[in-house]
Amino acid sequence: MSDAGGTTRRRGRPPRAESGDTRDRILDTAREEFSERGFEKTSVRGIAKAAGVDAALVHHYFGTKEQIFEAAIEVAFAPALEAPTAIGDGPLDRVGEQLTRFIFGIWENPTTRKPVLAIVRSAVNNDAAATVFRRLIATQVMQRVAARLDAPDAELRVELAAAQLVGCAMLRYVIRVEPLASADPERIVARLAPVVQGHLTGP
Amino acid sequence: MSDAGGTTRRRGRPPRAESGDTRDRILDTAREEFSERGFEKTSVRGIAKAAGVDAALVHHYFGTKEQIFEAAIEVAFAPALEAPTAIGDGPLDRVGEQLTRFIFGIWENPTTRKPVLAIVRSAVNNDAAATVFRRLIATQVMQRVAARLDAPDAELRVELAAAQLVGCAMLRYVIRVEPLASADPERIVARLAPVVQGHLTGP
Repeated sequence: MSDAGGTTRRRGRPPRAESGDTRDRILDTAREEFSERGFEKTSVRGIAKAAGVDAALVHHYFGTKEQIFEAAIEVAFAPALEAPTAIGDGPLDRVGEQLTRFIFGIWENPTTRKPVLAIVRSAVNNDAAATVFRRLIATQVMQRVAARLDAPDAELRVELAAAQLVGCAMLRYVIRVEPLASADPERIVARLAPVVQGHLTGP
Repeated sequence: MSDAGGTTRRRGRPPRAESGDTRDRILDTAREEFSERGFEKTSVRGIAKAAGVDAALVHHYFGTKEQIFEAAIEVAFAPALEAPTAIGDGPLDRVGEQLTRFIFGIWENPTTRKPVLAIVRSAVNNDAAATVFRRLIATQVMQRVAARLDAPDAELRVELAAAQLVGCAMLRYVIRVEPLASADPERIVARLAPVVQGHLTGP
């Protein structure tokens, strides 16, 4: 089982010229594997086999399964996190709407919905995946929003705001409770944005 | 594997006199198995073996695995749902606080936290379990609250309120994001109750 089969091209480190391509291919494959199977059922060997490389090379580039998972999440979220309108800019009295639209943008987009669903499922089921989720989401999203708030309880405010959005995503996209699941996204954004704003900047 | 081993007492239907006890024992065992393993990894055979009965008897009493899961959830939630102060009584302007305290009461109680965590994990991972969750929680909790609201969008209001509480439970008890995970429950209830109330009876 340690041999990746007929698709294995070589063992050990690749020549420098193609190492970037190989690393990207492994990462793309890891993202697909985690999306398809979730954290627990994905193995480093499975990723290596699907990418046509040796498992040792996957470890060489990324380290442990937790670290591959973290790198795969970062790749999946990069476009959303780099969007200039997402979070961290704009007037403070619209940060609630911004954050709400940011989260809905991820879930309503078919390209990002699947990886984010896999991440949520993994984090709910597995403590190691929950740790990665906590570290990454806390650092990348929550702290960026909290840094903008001039309040001693900024982090708790952001978490309670995030709770509203996470819970809505759970009931709408994962559990699919009606009428929420079929409601027009703009209608839901209009309802949630003031609530999120209230958590962040209210009294 | 179809034999429950040395603990099997008999096959087929038991005499009437002890059938109630046997049914209860199977249900208790099912609840424990689902709590320990989640929906996907729990099998009817596993429940039967742990309860010391034949799998056919489990099917005879409860039907499919989905139906056993539903019965196990109902048992786990029965004390909470039957509590007179939980939901469905009291003044309408305190329904937000009631619902918030009801949900926190389930999660803060060590006896109910484990089964509810198993239910959430199962519902997030498995469509059959999500269907059971949807049907049961929607009927038993959400519709009872919605019935009290005099609004055409009562169901959506309840779902958005539930989203705030579900999301908080996810971040606090499952993902364990700090400072939310260690915050005093009363502090969180004080923050969430007005938000939940706003969803339910606000403009």
